[in-house]
Amino acid sequence: MSQMQVLRAVNYPRMPWKNGGGSTEEIARDAGEGLEGFGWRLSIADIAESGGFSSFAGYQRIITVLQGDGMVLQVDGEASRALLPFDAFMFSGESQVSCRLLGGPIRDFNLIYAPQRYRARLQWLEGESRLFSSAQTLMVFAAGEQVRAALGGHAVQTLSRHDCVQVEGNAGLQALELSGHCCLIELSHC
Amino acid sequence: MSQMQVLRAVNYPRMPWKNGGGSTEEIARDAGEGLEGFGWRLSIADIAESGGFSSFAGYQRIITVLQGDGMVLQVDGEASRALLPFDAFMFSGESQVSCRLLGGPIRDFNLIYAPQRYRARLQWLEGESRLFSSAQTLMVFAAGEQVRAALGGHAVQTLSRHDCVQVEGNAGLQALELSGHCCLIELSHC
Repeated sequence: MSQMQVLRAVNYPRMPWKNGGGSTEEIARDAGEGLEGFGWRLSIADIAESGGFSSFAGYQRIITVLQGDGMVLQVDGEASRALLPFDAFMFSGESQVSCRLLGGPIRDFNLIYAPQRYRARLQWLEGESRLFSSAQTLMVFAAGEQVRAALGGHAVQTLSRHDCVQVEGNAGLQALELSGHCCLIELSHC
Repeated sequence: MSQMQVLRAVNYPRMPWKNGGGSTEEIARDAGEGLEGFGWRLSIADIAESGGFSSFAGYQRIITVLQGDGMVLQVDGEASRALLPFDAFMFSGESQVSCRLLGGPIRDFNLIYAPQRYRARLQWLEGESRLFSSAQTLMVFAAGEQVRAALGGHAVQTLSRHDCVQVEGNAGLQALELSGHCCLIELSHC
């Protein structure tokens, strides 16, 4: 039987970066502590100034600007397009990455996962969404207020901005109904 | 390296049902022949009259009415909601199923898969969609004209109504961009 958990944005633990250029709030992860041992991790970062990103060798990353003007990433010497809010971008955790802020500080949303351990899927949605998924882990992260998520047989949840609902241990196909501006993240063991 | 194939609706093989109540066009499958041996199959059915469905023990099904007024399914004695066009509905292939047409003949779209062999995902999309997937098999089925699909590093494809593009053998995360009214089907081995 699958387990549902609602994670409220006010409760996310916050950790400043060693280089002082920002801080991270951790939303959820599968295992491990700190920067070690996880197979996947969802987090929010506040980036105060342009600068380098930490390396995560063996991981795949997807980043989405949530607030602020946006940024350009330099990935192994190649510039990304201008990453404006809700324009998600994938890159390898092994790459040498730095960001240049387009304006003031930004807030971004991050999925980091180990592709040797997990298959991942990430999609930003707006309005009413209905779909069927057999992923083991489902997460809905609210970008707007009043996001509603009906995940399989679980009670409908209402999320405020940056809250997240997580369902673990799904077996079999689930019908999902989402409403509002949110990100759906799906993970399964390889 | 993944392989892309464009399947055109005019070329789908058509098979009449034994009971005379309809016929099936097969879009794609992973293996096997006839009603045997596949791990997943995508098809279109034309249902001429109300009546019983074939049994597919060991399979999961998702059905979507494409054209016509719609139908109500009776699944193990329980009536579904009225299934109108593009309102997808899941049920077990083991169930005893019959359909009652709400008006004249209908055309529907079917995913049948073996959940012991595959994880599946199905979502109807409209407008512009961007997402990231690491499914091994990706299929985009066009409900409208001029559906465009950019699947990972493959050339952008333009699909007419009921055409399908299939990418097999994906390894790693792919960025997908779709435009138009279509169904995205994703499959991976368990």
